Amino acid sequence: MAAQPHPVAGPAVRPHVVIVGGGFGGIEAAKVLGKASTKVKVTLVDRRNHHVFQPLLYQVATGAINPANIASPIRRILRSYDNIEVLLGDVESIDVAGKKLKLTDDEILFDFLILATGATHSYFGHDEWEKDAPGLKSIEDALEIRRRVFLAYEAAERETDPRRRREWTTFVVVGGGPTGVELAGALAEIARHDLIHEFHKFNPARSRVILVEAGPRVLPAYAEDLSAKAKSQLETLGVEVRLGTRVTGIGEDGVMTDHGSIAARTVLWGAGVQGSPLAKTLGVPLDRAGRVKVEPDLTIPHASEVFVVGDLAAIETDGKPVPGVAPAAMQEGKYAAKTILARLAHKPTKPFRYLDKGSLATIGRAAAIGEIGKLHLSGFIAWAAWCFIHVFFLIGFRNRILVMLEWGWLYLFHDRGSRLITGPVDDLLEKEHPSTRPHVVPVTVEG
Amino acid sequence: MAAQPHPVAGPAVRPHVVIVGGGFGGIEAAKVLGKASTKVKVTLVDRRNHHVFQPLLYQVATGAINPANIASPIRRILRSYDNIEVLLGDVESIDVAGKKLKLTDDEILFDFLILATGATHSYFGHDEWEKDAPGLKSIEDALEIRRRVFLAYEAAERETDPRRRREWTTFVVVGGGPTGVELAGALAEIARHDLIHEFHKFNPARSRVILVEAGPRVLPAYAEDLSAKAKSQLETLGVEVRLGTRVTGIGEDGVMTDHGSIAARTVLWGAGVQGSPLAKTLGVPLDRAGRVKVEPDLTIPHASEVFVVGDLAAIETDGKPVPGVAPAAMQEGKYAAKTILARLAHKPTKPFRYLDKGSLATIGRAAAIGEIGKLHLSGFIAWAAWCFIHVFFLIGFRNRILVMLEWGWLYLFHDRGSRLITGPVDDLLEKEHPSTRPHVVPVTVEG
Repeated sequence: MAAQPHPVAGPAVRPHVVIVGGGFGGIEAAKVLGKASTKVKVTLVDRRNHHVFQPLLYQVATGAINPANIASPIRRILRSYDNIEVLLGDVESIDVAGKKLKLTDDEILFDFLILATGATHSYFGHDEWEKDAPGLKSIEDALEIRRRVFLAYEAAERETDPRRRREWTTFVVVGGGPTGVELAGALAEIARHDLIHEFHKFNPARSRVILVEAGPRVLPAYAEDLSAKAKSQLETLGVEVRLGTRVTGIGEDGVMTDHGSIAARTVLWGAGVQGSPLAKTLGVPLDRAGRVKVEPDLTIPHASEVFVVGDLAAIETDGKPVPGVAPAAMQEGKYAAKTILARLAHKPTKPFRYLDKGSLATIGRAAAIGEIGKLHLSGFIAWAAWCFIHVFFLIGFRNRILVMLEWGWLYLFHDRGSRLITGPVDDLLEKEHPSTRPHVVPVTVEG
Repeated sequence: MAAQPHPVAGPAVRPHVVIVGGGFGGIEAAKVLGKASTKVKVTLVDRRNHHVFQPLLYQVATGAINPANIASPIRRILRSYDNIEVLLGDVESIDVAGKKLKLTDDEILFDFLILATGATHSYFGHDEWEKDAPGLKSIEDALEIRRRVFLAYEAAERETDPRRRREWTTFVVVGGGPTGVELAGALAEIARHDLIHEFHKFNPARSRVILVEAGPRVLPAYAEDLSAKAKSQLETLGVEVRLGTRVTGIGEDGVMTDHGSIAARTVLWGAGVQGSPLAKTLGVPLDRAGRVKVEPDLTIPHASEVFVVGDLAAIETDGKPVPGVAPAAMQEGKYAAKTILARLAHKPTKPFRYLDKGSLATIGRAAAIGEIGKLHLSGFIAWAAWCFIHVFFLIGFRNRILVMLEWGWLYLFHDRGSRLITGPVDDLLEKEHPSTRPHVVPVTVEG
């Protein structure tokens, strides 16, 4: 085994497994390996000190729950495993042949690598849209969206021109997948219920929330009848759903589509997915979304000691692509760790197989859909199941209790307890002033 | 009455009271005026959308509680008062003679003004120290301190040079007032108890926390016996208390004092107080700390319709200066509002008088001091009283419940639930690398 520039505790004979990424895949892999402390030593590297429970990120973005309640320090989660080290660091590239990772200011050698860096949003070649239509992948993203949403209402209260006020109270969400649907549903609830009696110059309930989706239905991963139910639940909440509508431009004054423009100051991005850029440094084939086309055992071609798990892995099992969801990432992380241990013990291994336990998508208060085998759920029952499962899978008893309390409070009192605007406020308020406000996108007011 | 550029709802005959600042003073004033909706209309302007419960800010800075649990949207607090408008805006200057406020992009006319913009930290003419020794006045400040503190431990885990690691695990707090004492106590608890078993390369319990105070004792607003008790409680927690030590320089590598240098990468500022800069635009005499020397009725000289309340007001009652604490700000806010209503009703008014109900300062777990009249408290009883009073005065039942739960969790499990590092991580990690790390301050390692 090669010498370690970063010495790791324990006897030098144990192979060194390096996990990059502390999301669902990375954490599950680490837990399996942590129970085999005599067999391997492990280093988990992440750019953040915390694991994020991504399925609830949209609730942070919409002020329903506190960021720390869906995030846990990675070293806290793994502190009971003596053979695991957690490092905060930014991996810049992977040298597969040399079995080493290059960090900004360091190198780490590995015997096995589990790459679990996930995916980010894709702007389909229009990265210039990002500044006017932020996506939702990290706590920072969520806080930025929260800032924009609640600042828009503040700006509307200060605005005297009705047309501009209309723009401040129009919210566009691009993308009809789970994130887009969740955000649109929550924005509609904020407008219709949660800000009542708080503004004097306008009625927040008259805000518009528009969900734009290029395809023919929302939540296309679900059966058609459930997509239709999701759409009607969104509409009941007050969301305008525009299907078959392709976005062609985004600026600070709104969105242009192939069916006309929408004047809006707040645009959120819930569309494309793109594999983490680190995948490019592996030197193996990627799919169109930049994900690694892995072998049936989740390794990369010609390097059986390098595994890719979670959203970054592109794989089909039972003839169907494995979806980019938390349960799949967890199963893949566990599989990769167990496969490494089996190989070290010279035991036979089987190809990865995804066990689909069903899926649920939430739309809003008492509104959700679910598909569990042949069972199709919607409405309150699906929503209750969604709540239960998401609290159950949250890491840490403390987080479970606090999230349940925050949900209960919101449900009973329509009070979003985390409605802080933090960070700069000047940029958006400045734009309000006619003389300082540039018109970069020609938009028309619709609806 | 002058025309309003910002039209305010309600009959035009009601005088317009403008409150600047949504802290303790501003909110209390607004509540009194909100109950007199037929007599006045009110506009409250703040740069932030939220009121912050400042006494618990240090607990956000040290990862004990979630930011939103000590902050409430101002318009939510005041939404039941029909005669109050809340505006997010940045007041740039006050035109006392013209009875108007100039905002970045707007003007607001007033009949009465209650200025409650508080104070910020003072670096005693060394504003260049701020970047290496952040102070604690806002949620943003608290999150920045939290980022630095927990990132320092991450950097220490990555550091291989023992001297540099020592610098990462040395924390200096400047100032022995309440904020400095609270921060130092919490930092010591983090080091001694809350990070146990989480790091492999060093023992967090061997971190140093040094409190530097220029004067002869900590918490000088309290009686001498209580200061001595506070010092010994700090030392029991593991804080090195250096009295009579004046800071002469602060750089990214440490602190220089008149008693030698301290090599430390994390320096926090809990020293001077300085009135908000807006006071300078009033054109009236300020004291050395930039606070407004108000008349006995809290108005400014020659303008009886302009009140200053809270930390920004410099006033003595009963021959003693009114301290810059929350109860004083609340009493002043209430007094100003009641005085305005009394004058409008042509009723007589009395000068402001501060009623000191006693004060409590916390040091750490089961450690605090208190002075209630002639009664001197310390230890567990003072701490329990402190906890009770601080939960009681938090705004909102939800926040009370959540803070109590977060405290209980921390108390029972030594687990700081809000230990997120958000924001940039590269800047501090970069510094760790020898080749990129500038040595701007010559420091010697002590102790």
